[in-house]
Amino acid sequence: MAPRPTPADKFSFGLWTVGWQARDPFGDATRGELDAVEAVHKLAELGAYGITFHDDDLIPFGADSAARDAQIARFRKALDETGLVVPMVTTNLFTHPVFKDGGFTSNDRDVRRYALRKVLRNIDLAAELGAKTYVMWGGREGSEYDLAKDIRAALDRYREGVDLLCEYVVDRGYDLRFAIEPKPNEPRGDILLPTVGHALAFISTLARPEMVGLNPEVGHEQMAGLNYAHGIAQALWQGKLFHLDLNGQRGIKYDQDLVFGHGDLMNAFALVDLLENGGPDGGPAYDGPRHFDYKPSRTEDFTGVWASAEANMRTYLLLKERAAAFRADPEVAEALAASRVGDLAIPTVADGEGYAGLLADRSAFEEYDVDAAAARGFHFVRLNQLAVEHLLGAR
Amino acid sequence: MAPRPTPADKFSFGLWTVGWQARDPFGDATRGELDAVEAVHKLAELGAYGITFHDDDLIPFGADSAARDAQIARFRKALDETGLVVPMVTTNLFTHPVFKDGGFTSNDRDVRRYALRKVLRNIDLAAELGAKTYVMWGGREGSEYDLAKDIRAALDRYREGVDLLCEYVVDRGYDLRFAIEPKPNEPRGDILLPTVGHALAFISTLARPEMVGLNPEVGHEQMAGLNYAHGIAQALWQGKLFHLDLNGQRGIKYDQDLVFGHGDLMNAFALVDLLENGGPDGGPAYDGPRHFDYKPSRTEDFTGVWASAEANMRTYLLLKERAAAFRADPEVAEALAASRVGDLAIPTVADGEGYAGLLADRSAFEEYDVDAAAARGFHFVRLNQLAVEHLLGAR
Amino acid sequence: MAPRPTPADKFSFGLWTVGWQARDPFGDATRGELDAVEAVHKLAELGAYGITFHDDDLIPFGADSAARDAQIARFRKALDETGLVVPMVTTNLFTHPVFKDGGFTSNDRDVRRYALRKVLRNIDLAAELGAKTYVMWGGREGSEYDLAKDIRAALDRYREGVDLLCEYVVDRGYDLRFAIEPKPNEPRGDILLPTVGHALAFISTLARPEMVGLNPEVGHEQMAGLNYAHGIAQALWQGKLFHLDLNGQRGIKYDQDLVFGHGDLMNAFALVDLLENGGPDGGPAYDGPRHFDYKPSRTEDFTGVWASAEANMRTYLLLKERAAAFRADPEVAEALAASRVGDLAIPTVADGEGYAGLLADRSAFEEYDVDAAAARGFHFVRLNQLAVEHLLGAR
Amino acid sequence: MAPRPTPADKFSFGLWTVGWQARDPFGDATRGELDAVEAVHKLAELGAYGITFHDDDLIPFGADSAARDAQIARFRKALDETGLVVPMVTTNLFTHPVFKDGGFTSNDRDVRRYALRKVLRNIDLAAELGAKTYVMWGGREGSEYDLAKDIRAALDRYREGVDLLCEYVVDRGYDLRFAIEPKPNEPRGDILLPTVGHALAFISTLARPEMVGLNPEVGHEQMAGLNYAHGIAQALWQGKLFHLDLNGQRGIKYDQDLVFGHGDLMNAFALVDLLENGGPDGGPAYDGPRHFDYKPSRTEDFTGVWASAEANMRTYLLLKERAAAFRADPEVAEALAASRVGDLAIPTVADGEGYAGLLADRSAFEEYDVDAAAARGFHFVRLNQLAVEHLLGAR
Repeated sequence: MAPRPTPADKFSFGLWTVGWQARDPFGDATRGELDAVEAVHKLAELGAYGITFHDDDLIPFGADSAARDAQIARFRKALDETGLVVPMVTTNLFTHPVFKDGGFTSNDRDVRRYALRKVLRNIDLAAELGAKTYVMWGGREGSEYDLAKDIRAALDRYREGVDLLCEYVVDRGYDLRFAIEPKPNEPRGDILLPTVGHALAFISTLARPEMVGLNPEVGHEQMAGLNYAHGIAQALWQGKLFHLDLNGQRGIKYDQDLVFGHGDLMNAFALVDLLENGGPDGGPAYDGPRHFDYKPSRTEDFTGVWASAEANMRTYLLLKERAAAFRADPEVAEALAASRVGDLAIPTVADGEGYAGLLADRSAFEEYDVDAAAARGFHFVRLNQLAVEHLLGAR
Repeated sequence: MAPRPTPADKFSFGLWTVGWQARDPFGDATRGELDAVEAVHKLAELGAYGITFHDDDLIPFGADSAARDAQIARFRKALDETGLVVPMVTTNLFTHPVFKDGGFTSNDRDVRRYALRKVLRNIDLAAELGAKTYVMWGGREGSEYDLAKDIRAALDRYREGVDLLCEYVVDRGYDLRFAIEPKPNEPRGDILLPTVGHALAFISTLARPEMVGLNPEVGHEQMAGLNYAHGIAQALWQGKLFHLDLNGQRGIKYDQDLVFGHGDLMNAFALVDLLENGGPDGGPAYDGPRHFDYKPSRTEDFTGVWASAEANMRTYLLLKERAAAFRADPEVAEALAASRVGDLAIPTVADGEGYAGLLADRSAFEEYDVDAAAARGFHFVRLNQLAVEHLLGAR
Repeated sequence: MAPRPTPADKFSFGLWTVGWQARDPFGDATRGELDAVEAVHKLAELGAYGITFHDDDLIPFGADSAARDAQIARFRKALDETGLVVPMVTTNLFTHPVFKDGGFTSNDRDVRRYALRKVLRNIDLAAELGAKTYVMWGGREGSEYDLAKDIRAALDRYREGVDLLCEYVVDRGYDLRFAIEPKPNEPRGDILLPTVGHALAFISTLARPEMVGLNPEVGHEQMAGLNYAHGIAQALWQGKLFHLDLNGQRGIKYDQDLVFGHGDLMNAFALVDLLENGGPDGGPAYDGPRHFDYKPSRTEDFTGVWASAEANMRTYLLLKERAAAFRADPEVAEALAASRVGDLAIPTVADGEGYAGLLADRSAFEEYDVDAAAARGFHFVRLNQLAVEHLLGAR
Repeated sequence: MAPRPTPADKFSFGLWTVGWQARDPFGDATRGELDAVEAVHKLAELGAYGITFHDDDLIPFGADSAARDAQIARFRKALDETGLVVPMVTTNLFTHPVFKDGGFTSNDRDVRRYALRKVLRNIDLAAELGAKTYVMWGGREGSEYDLAKDIRAALDRYREGVDLLCEYVVDRGYDLRFAIEPKPNEPRGDILLPTVGHALAFISTLARPEMVGLNPEVGHEQMAGLNYAHGIAQALWQGKLFHLDLNGQRGIKYDQDLVFGHGDLMNAFALVDLLENGGPDGGPAYDGPRHFDYKPSRTEDFTGVWASAEANMRTYLLLKERAAAFRADPEVAEALAASRVGDLAIPTVADGEGYAGLLADRSAFEEYDVDAAAARGFHFVRLNQLAVEHLLGAR
């Protein structure tokens, strides 16, 4: 049986996930509104540790100050009662029609200014609630038509916006970092910063690159046919895994936001192994929230909503158990050695050898038996089969 | 009619393109070998400016020094006779079975050392032939099985390799820059640095980032469903478009390497417009070779090979004409203005305004008429239709 | 310049296309409601020939009889005033939450019965308005979870439903045929009858297969990476192209419903050539409505809506002109011959020859010079380049 | 632990799978030739039941009669010694350059005649060896260029070819059926009969449709983003699952031919459940060979080849165990009922009710409480989570 989740597992959920009313491009809502206070209580009961939100999830767009303050107070009270924390907050710059051509990169400068103001206001709230990460998903920053958007100007404006927000956070003394969430397309035909790579590259151009990292989502990378575990590994390698969004996706199609593990199960296994066992000495490689950004399917009522919330956590914990067993299995250790997986950590050129040493080493080239080397097998299939059998709980 | 290409157009071809013998995963060669000297003469006749090659394209793998020198001499003679230049050279680290798990990132350290030596030798030749760009396509750097490759160690080794090569070039005093060519998959299940973004991000971690840029290929980005013109724009924006590979791809599938324009024609049009008219004052945004990395289809004989080489250049020139007409059309100028495309170049926050000024501007938020703003149309469809009609030569 | 559309061009539009309010999975409506009567007048002005609708497009879900009758009367009046016809009608079995697990194939039998009743009622209206085609897009008939839907039982129910509808139409004496519209996914994870092929296969199992054909949509086939022109060709070959949905899609991603030609332009060209010039003696291969099922982008206001409606027709007419010129070009005729395109119409085995004759023909096998045959080129690239140049209006 | 395979499990392998020398589009062979006799002995040792082949796998293309006969004799001897059977045979109409534009549908009529002769000769051998299924994978039947292939003429020729072969088999009295193997693309840009659906539709047009069924391959359907288990279900529903090809694929990309289960594990689970438990009374829905058509990765030596062959069978047997446990779990039975999965087997309209009865039933429409019905949840996520937990061996 799957172990029960506890706050120590650091599971968090977006308020917009369990609260999704299940409108889709071809269908009306199948569920009613979920009160944020109820969501907090229910998630706490299920063993979650945190809850996250877009400004408009918590406070209806256009609410006046009094309504806003009252709602924040109710929400804080629920947090206090349950011990749930708010590790991350984000802004909705996509639902209202004013953002139809984007927020930071709309062709309309007034919209860009409005978008920045909306974020600034919400950053204050994030800091007030103790969030450490501020996510930016620029889902409307993009285009359908190649000649209708000047991509370089758009990247200038994107950078301008992020730099301004960083400056604000520094000046205010907030303990907050930003995390960009890439996505290749939907709702725009092509979205700016479409993958983990593009966002990492963009960050390297910022005024304060150290304040900005990533929030990669399983399904978003897989919508481009990319390997999510590889993307997470590069983000870790560049010190930029600030947060992450766990869910499930079945291949290159519309954004499915299934329960974690209900998509590519093998890649989910590799991911959990990386997060939990990929650190120095085999400990965790990431210690932030395990955040679920999924949608309870449109076919579900609220019973199904809560069952789906639980399913995310159960699957994660099961995969964590499987990954621990995989790492502890002596046959796996032997197979990893036979595949020379660990040898890749050895520098190719010895300390102090340099290219001069390499050029001087005739065994490396002139006398290298290339055919003998080519004949050696790497035994990767056997290793993968061991992984499959551990995943299946068959070892 | 399409204008005839001349060397001023800077069209270059890989020796492996016209020389491809048309073996594919399910079929044997349909064409014989093409002598490099003949390729040089024929491409010169067709109006090309340059020829590029992998070491093993020019000199068979394992050839002895005498054979190697003789072949280089024949090739130089052909270049001298025709005026064709060698703007770019690259290494084959993928055909020989020794590279079956990669070159710089093979789990086998001896293979990694061999790979570096193979590149070092070929860099000398590149410099000798006057090449200014050295391309690195790491097509075998990747994996099929998530647990059989330590991605972070692989990126360490990748960086180690590139840093060493940069050091070598600097020490030798060669006038040579490197260009990484991303690809998402094929021949490996997942390739490291799968997109323009991932490669740009990787470059930002190098010891000498200024020496390394990109060589993005049309089909490679499109195999991940990404917008090639967007990728090129981001590469330009980061100052990293060192070279590029033009060809055609029809969607997310195996790497087709069709003739340029025989894939997504609209995106090809946007690309040529960006390259030719995207610079300051509307001049070219890129002045390097227009390099074709395509494969004459397996159904073609040598007549078809040369017809396909010509087709690449003709299509490019036709698209250049169409893009010039698009930019010169007053109705287009009016449509661009109506879509506020140029407004994106205006900073969102005025000079000296800062976030403080923005916060102080009540018209930006408190008094912003968000519904009125939301109601304004961007007229992007009309603009795109103008682009389509220019592309069709109908205006 | 593009010729102006006239009713003789048989262009038709879904009421839901120009009337789309531009809600998407991440955003609220950007446009108000469009009155059906205004749509009729406006489309007639633009040169369209027909208008089509889902029941709920014309008459709000749940309207009472009086409201329903009044709205139908207003609509008929507009048709009479403009001369616009209603060539096709269809049912909405996807928007209301009751259809969240499908209509004909919901796991809930009562929903299935309700769905059939909703269709039956609307068929009466279709017949009354003179429609000749009744489209069935089963967008909710599918599943996200492989073990939650018995696919064979679902196909039984699908067939039961279609058979019942056919019987009804026959008994009522309506002059109406059905056309199934395939789609691979979205809004369901996997939709039943996902492609032209699956739907054709399903039709072959029906009680009255002659009454049921296809309504293939450009983007739906392309969402599965399939060649739309090929799919249309197979549908024509099986006598099943009863209707079609023209629009644009840029590769494998969410359903974009762009303007026709704003996606894969080359495939659109091949399609128009097939429709207009693919019949016996080079005449049209299809004489039904050229129906646009697209969505004016969310960035557009109503000016943009009408511009986009026009754009569909202009592009079609331009492609028709280009295709006519392609077919009339003697160089194309020569290239088609060189590629032996027409030779495929010659039976492989001569009349009366049979396998016995083929086996007796030593020149076909024992004495066949397979290497000489293998060496002959097909010159397809040249032919395609001629197509590209015609498409670009450059010949 | 996984149970050991025995011939009763009916596992079969293509000779070309374990014998693949691991040439790919960018790389030379990494393994030597495998003798067919050794393959037979080795597969028998591992517990397989059958071996299959293309003519050219067993007998080199162009071998003379004496060499051919000698090789067949050696192969039969190995079969006799091991008890391995040959359940299926197929023809190679793709490797030799003569087939570069296809076999049955090449634009070159002589090639078409040669292709038919090659098949006819091999059918005699198939019958002689006792094969019951003759597979036709038309991997070269297709095109890259939309205007270079007349698709309807190609389908005429395809049908002509299949009809002729059926006639031959009938006249010869062979106990042999044909099975078409669909694939969407690779090695051609677009292949004819790209999916299970298109092939089923084609079969319905044949002179002897009862003799022709399908051989669907996991990866081929998944290369189009289609659900393989759904495709198999439709093939079973139409009585056309004559054979099948099991392997693994990780999404929409080149054809990977991984070990079964090394791709989409959840879909593999659903497939095995369907095959093993989907028949009447919960028995098998398919009793033919469980045929593996995979490629041992290029990184493997022969030790890895045999390990990979074993892995296919082990994974299948493990999934069969998991599926049996899933079906036996009372909580699953309860969840299936809650999701009303079985209710889909109940006809929508009662026996004898007809549309008249349905129209008369006011509870079905006029008095149907559509909102109450819409509010009921289907609990699919819980059911899927039970499937995931069974798959993980966690229940």
